[in-house]
Amino acid sequence: MRYHRIPDETVRRLPIYLRGLLLSAEQGRQRISSRNLADFVGVNSWQIRKDFSYFGDFGTPGVGYNIEKLIKQIKRILRLDVIHKAALVGVGNLGSAVLAYPLFRGYGFEVVAAFDVNPKKIGRKINNIVIEDISRLWTLKKRKINIAIIAVPCEVAQQRADELIKAGVRGILNFSPCYIAAPKKVKVITIDIAMDLARLPYYIPAD
Amino acid sequence: MRYHRIPDETVRRLPIYLRGLLLSAEQGRQRISSRNLADFVGVNSWQIRKDFSYFGDFGTPGVGYNIEKLIKQIKRILRLDVIHKAALVGVGNLGSAVLAYPLFRGYGFEVVAAFDVNPKKIGRKINNIVIEDISRLWTLKKRKINIAIIAVPCEVAQQRADELIKAGVRGILNFSPCYIAAPKKVKVITIDIAMDLARLPYYIPAD
Repeated sequence: MRYHRIPDETVRRLPIYLRGLLLSAEQGRQRISSRNLADFVGVNSWQIRKDFSYFGDFGTPGVGYNIEKLIKQIKRILRLDVIHKAALVGVGNLGSAVLAYPLFRGYGFEVVAAFDVNPKKIGRKINNIVIEDISRLWTLKKRKINIAIIAVPCEVAQQRADELIKAGVRGILNFSPCYIAAPKKVKVITIDIAMDLARLPYYIPAD
Repeated sequence: MRYHRIPDETVRRLPIYLRGLLLSAEQGRQRISSRNLADFVGVNSWQIRKDFSYFGDFGTPGVGYNIEKLIKQIKRILRLDVIHKAALVGVGNLGSAVLAYPLFRGYGFEVVAAFDVNPKKIGRKINNIVIEDISRLWTLKKRKINIAIIAVPCEVAQQRADELIKAGVRGILNFSPCYIAAPKKVKVITIDIAMDLARLPYYIPAD
């Protein structure tokens, strides 16, 4: 079942809630109030209640939300209740960090393929993934991998995205510091690792 | 001047708007409607107008927002109108990617120091930054660096944060996949590079 009327802004916050809930569950908690979740994830509690109301309210006043149930529900809405296979394009510093990053699995992702242009890297193994020649991107279609992570320099990001889309990729997480154009059927999410730093000075008192 | 009544959620979105505006300015645009900005950054236009209303509305109906003026205003609110010096702790794959990432400067940040525990790395230069021994974190106070980026493994993240706070750091961008506890006077923003991937499957139609 899809929930077509959930606004993009709510979809953007669901992983934030999911992360907070997963951490709470790890700490052994079973229930959480919207206020506690709010403190934990840095979103207002009225916003949390409003977001949750889009897909039915599971909270019981005075008792709070059942964490496990909420995790399941959010995962189902975000379609994270199955494992998604993803490919990495570009095994430089950032790409290597992605391959080693433990949390992708927590969200239901498994990076199962990695590609690079550098002949010195091709054939090498990182985290049990053999790095393949970039010319083999076309194989993603028959391997049924339709999600890709782009971590290449700006200059080639669009070209790699075009190749990925041609190979059937429908979702791209773009770590390149540049805009990628794509047809409507393809969802591109661009991550700017510097952007969150821009929020810090607001909270730091001037000397 | 500080704008104390801006909700955290709006502060969280301001860098998103700023990024969209900076890209629009780069493309030579001078004005933008809230609807166009909405399409560009993936936030609803009513939300944008509401967010901007917290610090006074600069939009003219039918004409849109003056991009340059808006960039200046947002930078001023976020206190990005001055250059902030930042230190990097941990020069592994992710840390190296941070040092090479071009966009920090766009938000008014300059990474001016980097620290690591690995003797093979200490003394080496990356992007004109000489990597220093981690035991020298205490020098940040006299160098007036009060923002730090943590890119170390989970197991040592809290220890490094404690050392940074002792050295006068008041804002931490945490790339470690773990929670960092800090006193109220210190703002910690934790980045989970996997989290945004969790939004992708929602947008990808099932086969």
